[in-house]
Amino acid sequence: MQTIQAVSYPVHFQEESYKALSNLIEENNYSTIFILVDENTLEHCYPKFIPNLSTDKKIELIEIESGEINKNLETCIGVWNAITELGGDRKSLLITLGGGVITDLGGFVASCFKRGIDFVNIPTTLLSMVDASVGGKTGVDLGVLKNQIGLFANPEMVIVDNAYLETVAPREIKSGTAEIIKYGVTYDINLFNEIKDNKDLNISDLIFRSVEIKNEVVLQDPREKNLRKILNFGHTLGHAIESFYLESEDKENLTHGEAIAIGMVCECYMSAKLLGFPEEKVTDVKDVVVSIYDKTTLLKEDFSSILDLLKHDKKNVNGQVNFVLLNDFEDFKIDCKVPEALIIESMEFYNQ
Amino acid sequence: MQTIQAVSYPVHFQEESYKALSNLIEENNYSTIFILVDENTLEHCYPKFIPNLSTDKKIELIEIESGEINKNLETCIGVWNAITELGGDRKSLLITLGGGVITDLGGFVASCFKRGIDFVNIPTTLLSMVDASVGGKTGVDLGVLKNQIGLFANPEMVIVDNAYLETVAPREIKSGTAEIIKYGVTYDINLFNEIKDNKDLNISDLIFRSVEIKNEVVLQDPREKNLRKILNFGHTLGHAIESFYLESEDKENLTHGEAIAIGMVCECYMSAKLLGFPEEKVTDVKDVVVSIYDKTTLLKEDFSSILDLLKHDKKNVNGQVNFVLLNDFEDFKIDCKVPEALIIESMEFYNQ
Repeated sequence: MQTIQAVSYPVHFQEESYKALSNLIEENNYSTIFILVDENTLEHCYPKFIPNLSTDKKIELIEIESGEINKNLETCIGVWNAITELGGDRKSLLITLGGGVITDLGGFVASCFKRGIDFVNIPTTLLSMVDASVGGKTGVDLGVLKNQIGLFANPEMVIVDNAYLETVAPREIKSGTAEIIKYGVTYDINLFNEIKDNKDLNISDLIFRSVEIKNEVVLQDPREKNLRKILNFGHTLGHAIESFYLESEDKENLTHGEAIAIGMVCECYMSAKLLGFPEEKVTDVKDVVVSIYDKTTLLKEDFSSILDLLKHDKKNVNGQVNFVLLNDFEDFKIDCKVPEALIIESMEFYNQ
Repeated sequence: MQTIQAVSYPVHFQEESYKALSNLIEENNYSTIFILVDENTLEHCYPKFIPNLSTDKKIELIEIESGEINKNLETCIGVWNAITELGGDRKSLLITLGGGVITDLGGFVASCFKRGIDFVNIPTTLLSMVDASVGGKTGVDLGVLKNQIGLFANPEMVIVDNAYLETVAPREIKSGTAEIIKYGVTYDINLFNEIKDNKDLNISDLIFRSVEIKNEVVLQDPREKNLRKILNFGHTLGHAIESFYLESEDKENLTHGEAIAIGMVCECYMSAKLLGFPEEKVTDVKDVVVSIYDKTTLLKEDFSSILDLLKHDKKNVNGQVNFVLLNDFEDFKIDCKVPEALIIESMEFYNQ
C-alpha cells in the first residue's frame, strides 16, 4: 500500500512500515527507544509489534493505565518521571502504541520532554488510525475538558497497520466509524455512501481514504483557520455530550464515536433549520447512525449540564459557541451561532 | 532606546514599549488579557505596569507563589484551571510580569493552553531581562531537574523596562550580572572588562548589549546545534550546583547567578587544563566572581551528589556530560568531555 506524505512526515501502511521505522532508528542513532503502552496494548499489540522492531538500541517499555480518564497531566508527570529515571535524553525516541489516549498524550509528553524529543505514532484503534494519525494535535484533558492542554507537534512517522484492529473490541471499531462518516458527509460523500450501502466493508480502503482526506484538509489549513474546521463537524456538541457522560458517575461512558455520531445527527438537524440543509439528508445520517450504534437517550434534565460544557469548547471565542454546519453534503459553513433553543431541539430530534 | 528584532518578535525598551503593547492588543482584538504575577511583582511591579496598559479589554490577574520551588507542573495546572475558570479562550493574551520563573512558566502555560495562546513577556529582574527575554525557551522543573519539561515558543513581544529593577533586591541584581559576565567571556570581552574595571556601571547599556548578543547568538543557531551552546557556559556544572542547593534542606539556596558564577570559575579551570585557556584569565574570572558574590564553600562530601545531578543535564547524550569550554575569551569549544577527577579538582580550585 502507498505511503501518504503528511506535512513533515510519512504515514506508512501495513507490514512495509516496519522497514521504514528501522531505517529511521538507524539514521537518527537514537540513544534509547521508549515504547508507551497501556495494559491492553501491552497484552495484545506489543507482541505483534516487537518482532517487527529490528534494532540493537536499548528499548524501555512504559505502561500507563488505559482510558480517557487517565489522559491527564498526572499521567504525563508519571511518564516524564519514568523517562527521566530510565535515562532518557534529547536523542531518545518515543514510540506510542495504542489508541487516541496513548498517541495524543504520548505526542505531548515527547514534545515537552527536554523541549522536545522525536516520536513515532502507531495507532492501534480504528479511531486513532483515521483521526489522530495526521494533523499534529497532541494533548491531554484538564478535568473534564477534553484536550484543553496540548500542542501542535508532528511525529517523525506514523504507522497504520490493520493487524492491530484484530485486537480491538467491536464497539471500538464502531467508534472509529463515526469519524469516517464525518469525512464522508463533509468532504467525500462516496465514503458515506459506502458505509450506508455496504454490509461488507473493505476496512483497509476506508482507512486509507480517510487518512488521505484528513491529510488533504490539514495540509491546506494546518492551523484551523477555515477548511480544517470541518473536522470539528459533530464534535462541538459531541464533545460536550462525551464530557457530560464522562463526568456523570451514574452513567456509563460513551465512546468518542458514539458521542460524535449523536453530535452529527444534531448538527445536521441544526444545519437544516439554519442553512437549509436538505431534511432527507438529515434522515439519511440519522438512519446510518442509529443502525450502527446502540441508541442513547439524552435526558431532558441533563440538557443544561451539556449546554454548560459547550461553553468551554476550545473553539469558542468571547464566550460564543461556534458550530461548523452544512449547507449540503461536502459544503460547509464555519462559525455558525446556534440559539440555545435550537440546540435543545436538535437533541430532542435525536431522541425521537 | 532602539528596538531589537528577535526571530519573530520585537524586544522593546523603556517607556516607549507600552505604546507598542497597546497597539498589539488593539490589532489582535484579544478577548481577555491575563496578567501572571507572583506576590512580589503584584506588590511592586504591577502598580508600575498597570497605568501603562491602556485598553478597554477585560483584564484578569493570576497570582502564583514566587520562587524556583514553585516552577513546576502543579503550578501550571493551577494557572490553567484559573484561566479556564476566568473564561480564557484561544483569543486570550497572557502577559507575564516577573522574573525567570514567571516568564518561563508563563510562556509554557500559554503555549500549551488550548494548543497555544499569545503571550508577552515583561521580565522584571536583571536575570530575566538579559537571559529569558530572547531565545524562546519556556518550561518548568520536574522535581529538582531544572527546565526538564518545556518547549521552544516565542512571545509576541518582550518589554524590557529598567524601572522594574528598582523593585529588585541587590542580591537579585547580582544574580543577573553573572549572565552578563557570561556574554562577556564567551562573546564580547568588552562587556566583561566593563564589569571588571568599572565601579559605576551603566546598567541600561549592559542590558541592551546583553540582549543584543543573546539575540545574535539565537538567530544564528535557534535550535542549539553549535554557537548557541555558548549560552550554557558555566551552566553545566552551575545547574547541578544550583539543583543541589535547592534540594538540600539544610542549606540556603543559591541564586541562579551565584551558582552559574561558580560554574564559570570551575569551567574556566577545566578549560585551562584541557584546552590551554590562559591561567591568568582563569584568575581574572575568579577575581571578578569573588568580588561580586559572597563566597560559597562547596563541601567535599557534597561533590558526589553534585556529580550525580550533572548526569541528568538536558544536554547530555548517551549518559555523557557535555561541557562548553573556552580555548580563549570569545573562542569556545562545544561537546567537551571532562574526566570526573577534573570536575572535582575544579570545585576544589573554586574553594581555594
